[in-house]
Amino acid sequence: MARVASPALDELIGQRLAVLDDGFVRVVDYMGGDESIVQAARVSYGKGTKQLREDRGLIRYLMRHRHTTPFEMCEIKLHLRVPMDTWRQWIRHRTANVNEYSTRYSVAIDAAQRTDPAEWRRQSPENRQGSSTNLDLATGQALSAREAQLQELAREVYQERITRGVAREQARKDLPLSTYTEAYWKVDLHNLLHFLELRLDLRAQREIRAYARVLGETVVRAWCPVTWEAFVDYHLQSMSLSRLEIAVVHALSTQPERAMEVARASGLLKSGGSLEPTREGKEVGEKLALLGFVVPWSPPGRPD
Amino acid sequence: MARVASPALDELIGQRLAVLDDGFVRVVDYMGGDESIVQAARVSYGKGTKQLREDRGLIRYLMRHRHTTPFEMCEIKLHLRVPMDTWRQWIRHRTANVNEYSTRYSVAIDAAQRTDPAEWRRQSPENRQGSSTNLDLATGQALSAREAQLQELAREVYQERITRGVAREQARKDLPLSTYTEAYWKVDLHNLLHFLELRLDLRAQREIRAYARVLGETVVRAWCPVTWEAFVDYHLQSMSLSRLEIAVVHALSTQPERAMEVARASGLLKSGGSLEPTREGKEVGEKLALLGFVVPWSPPGRPD
Amino acid sequence: MARVASPALDELIGQRLAVLDDGFVRVVDYMGGDESIVQAARVSYGKGTKQLREDRGLIRYLMRHRHTTPFEMCEIKLHLRVPMDTWRQWIRHRTANVNEYSTRYSVAIDAAQRTDPAEWRRQSPENRQGSSTNLDLATGQALSAREAQLQELAREVYQERITRGVAREQARKDLPLSTYTEAYWKVDLHNLLHFLELRLDLRAQREIRAYARVLGETVVRAWCPVTWEAFVDYHLQSMSLSRLEIAVVHALSTQPERAMEVARASGLLKSGGSLEPTREGKEVGEKLALLGFVVPWSPPGRPD
Amino acid sequence: MARVASPALDELIGQRLAVLDDGFVRVVDYMGGDESIVQAARVSYGKGTKQLREDRGLIRYLMRHRHTTPFEMCEIKLHLRVPMDTWRQWIRHRTANVNEYSTRYSVAIDAAQRTDPAEWRRQSPENRQGSSTNLDLATGQALSAREAQLQELAREVYQERITRGVAREQARKDLPLSTYTEAYWKVDLHNLLHFLELRLDLRAQREIRAYARVLGETVVRAWCPVTWEAFVDYHLQSMSLSRLEIAVVHALSTQPERAMEVARASGLLKSGGSLEPTREGKEVGEKLALLGFVVPWSPPGRPD
Repeated sequence: MARVASPALDELIGQRLAVLDDGFVRVVDYMGGDESIVQAARVSYGKGTKQLREDRGLIRYLMRHRHTTPFEMCEIKLHLRVPMDTWRQWIRHRTANVNEYSTRYSVAIDAAQRTDPAEWRRQSPENRQGSSTNLDLATGQALSAREAQLQELAREVYQERITRGVAREQARKDLPLSTYTEAYWKVDLHNLLHFLELRLDLRAQREIRAYARVLGETVVRAWCPVTWEAFVDYHLQSMSLSRLEIAVVHALSTQPERAMEVARASGLLKSGGSLEPTREGKEVGEKLALLGFVVPWSPPGRPD
Repeated sequence: MARVASPALDELIGQRLAVLDDGFVRVVDYMGGDESIVQAARVSYGKGTKQLREDRGLIRYLMRHRHTTPFEMCEIKLHLRVPMDTWRQWIRHRTANVNEYSTRYSVAIDAAQRTDPAEWRRQSPENRQGSSTNLDLATGQALSAREAQLQELAREVYQERITRGVAREQARKDLPLSTYTEAYWKVDLHNLLHFLELRLDLRAQREIRAYARVLGETVVRAWCPVTWEAFVDYHLQSMSLSRLEIAVVHALSTQPERAMEVARASGLLKSGGSLEPTREGKEVGEKLALLGFVVPWSPPGRPD
Repeated sequence: MARVASPALDELIGQRLAVLDDGFVRVVDYMGGDESIVQAARVSYGKGTKQLREDRGLIRYLMRHRHTTPFEMCEIKLHLRVPMDTWRQWIRHRTANVNEYSTRYSVAIDAAQRTDPAEWRRQSPENRQGSSTNLDLATGQALSAREAQLQELAREVYQERITRGVAREQARKDLPLSTYTEAYWKVDLHNLLHFLELRLDLRAQREIRAYARVLGETVVRAWCPVTWEAFVDYHLQSMSLSRLEIAVVHALSTQPERAMEVARASGLLKSGGSLEPTREGKEVGEKLALLGFVVPWSPPGRPD
Repeated sequence: MARVASPALDELIGQRLAVLDDGFVRVVDYMGGDESIVQAARVSYGKGTKQLREDRGLIRYLMRHRHTTPFEMCEIKLHLRVPMDTWRQWIRHRTANVNEYSTRYSVAIDAAQRTDPAEWRRQSPENRQGSSTNLDLATGQALSAREAQLQELAREVYQERITRGVAREQARKDLPLSTYTEAYWKVDLHNLLHFLELRLDLRAQREIRAYARVLGETVVRAWCPVTWEAFVDYHLQSMSLSRLEIAVVHALSTQPERAMEVARASGLLKSGGSLEPTREGKEVGEKLALLGFVVPWSPPGRPD
């Protein structure tokens, strides 16, 4: 008997998968694979199931029914290089093991994430925590020049402090958040998938999404291909319908003429007899469109 | 400035809310309420939002978009009396604080959960981990008599061991799983709702569901009424549609004649041109019916 | 580059290491080893340290100074067979991943832990949660006979319920706590060592200590020998001295005649000028003896 | 029956306890107190103990024997204002609930931690992750002037980005780590004490120690005075002796002439018959001195 191995992931071990201008993801070690999930589920279910289902069906069943514990039986250890700003979001995922490069112990990594003039993003007018289209190039060039100036001064000041003998723990205090840090990050597959579900979402910040894409589409797909496929089908590309939304869909599929009334009773339209959707009503409309319905309160072709 | 209080929950403090034949749930202490969730969310969002939304809308927005951290800001401490068999399921929820009655330190609680003759449940033929209808009364009476005999012998043997000076930690080794235990259980609202989502599900075992109902419908509803309502709308009575299910609904609402083809391509029908659904196909059929669709592969009125 | 391997642990994979009358510990998979701890620590400390210390010294330094995160970088997955009574203690360690054999899904494991007539333990008169010497053989034989009778009835009743069609989830309700269960248990090395520190303690119950010994002395010692040695030196065989104990030792090593006075002021002697130690005073006395001091309030050779 | 209250902590609720130049700690809410710890311990121990011990003795017993779960029964919620650099250390304590001010959603807090010219610390020559004495005032003034220049430029650049319409999530990327952030931080008493044990240590960074002092000496002392006292006695001012150290103390107290030999055999002296201690040997020497022993390898009055 030997350890479970994933030949496709073995090939990736040690490779630096580039992200952003100077970041990377590198697989260092791992334990388990699709096979371990099946093995763990079968301990729970006892002998009875062995012949009945093949592995793929079992993994998909577990994913569909949110039986999450078998996915915790796989573990992966990554070496990351990430801007501190992105790391601030990353570290909020608490169920993981972390060893970060210490700027108390060693001189800070001399690299900061820089923005290409074409990559400055405009504040989204609708979504307070999002960005939208990119700014024009002339503005971008001015912004990138100032970014370089600021990063240069920060580097100089840090260097001066070190030279004058300031303790590293204090010298680092004004480093920009764009400074790269490195860490070993170890996590089980269930928690990694949860991280990916949140960080692959379009509302996640572009920088962390870039890491999530590499982790999902390169690393997890190579490591546990059956699980990745099930995750895409039952989580990433799934949709949740609330009690209110179920009622609206039910009306549309049985008595379409009552749909407006149902929507109004559920607070999806602005008050006072308006045909305009509330914020939640707009979100509902987007889902209905994906389900192939003509949204009664938002004429086709007229996105709101 | 003073602590956040929930007058409706204050009234419940100390009351034993009965569950099963001899169990209970008792609220001992708590921190926060609906108001604390809003307060925490506003720290995240900064000053800008104060005037813009009212509290109910904000709580519903957080629930709808799975912004879970503000719900972690409320905490509750309960005194529970639960059969050890149920406790074995309960304790699998790891994100909680626990102090359980120690049968090493003290003599075991002299009470075991008994089954009424009318309450013996038949093994479900379809769902390997479920039960279905109840057994007939004559059988139930025989089973309850044997239950009493076994519990009586277990009590005698335990008592003998204690009398003969056996260490309590060893004397307890053959207590039946039906023996009641007590514990203080402290949990934050987010994790309590997650517990309730799993344990109010119809597939959860009837005994733990009895506790979950009291915790949800009596305790949480009194403590955080706005959160409870949002939880019901966006979680308890919600439905998740997979990538495959979205495709089937889309077909039904736009080109119903293609729905069978889509379902077949997604593996929802048995192979070989069959019109019979697979196990997943049946589950999909149940959801479609709830959405008001005529399920193409399962004629109405003929449940499978 | 390849995964870190531990040849000594590779040899153990798949072997059932027997514990109690019918239990076992079996290593299923693992990630990392002593080498990974060093690797993780060096990410934290940066390049500067590579030449300065060799690995053993670094691991001992980390252990001595409670730098725990590098030890979280190793992970192990075990297959366990444990009486439910012991499992109730085991599962209280929350930072681990678990898949337990389901007696809802499958018929319960037909084995219960039995007590040899010579192995019945007497309740400790001093330590309310402990046991002391064994009971005499005649008593033990009577107790073992009654144990067999109870376990036999429990098996019969369980079997009857299954035969009559009772749902497995309900049929199991009166199984004795001595019934064996099985589980996959996955844990990182830091949390495993914490488990071992608590469960190798003489105050831990004998049954779980039997498992802890195999886990520590066979599994961890083979897997991470340098870490195991450091753990023994800095944790298992260490001693903690409180502020009060430091004061007493200081008095004994500088002005022995003042030691009684210091002890009295710290509440280690009973009030009213007594020379008798309090409960805490006895514990302090045991430590002083281990440190080679003549305990002033407990004449040598007269253990209390 | 009513919630447990701590009148001394009630008085602190809402007050901003100042830390550093512009930070604070503010108690927002809490649950429980010394009384809850006793209550939880008594559930574990059953009725038998009620009369036997008074509360103070029980709390001290629990603390001395590392019975940690009753301390998890108290919870506190704090509003913090902390430089991001300090927050990076703080957030590594994973067992807590957090809502941080979002600089994606709102404009960043316009305050950065500044260093007084007299407060620049020299890198410790011995301890790679520490600082030692302060730098001279002239150097400090130069460093503080440059700090002001850098912080001023960072503020300008951030403001420009916001003005030109850059998304907040991107505009913040070069904020200095000294920028203040705010958060709600909710934690149970056991984990708070663990945080304090690590962050009150002299090796912790001065900035986070300033917060830890307020949390310990003002907040916890007011909230749970008996627990705080026990924590000081059994943790903060305790000392751990390793297997090697126990052997050295034993030698010193029984056969002082053998102490050097024991120390040498344990690797506490440099190899080759040297009388010079290794790094670990120096640490042992410091402990021996605190215990009142003359350290054989380090003549009194000659600190190494």
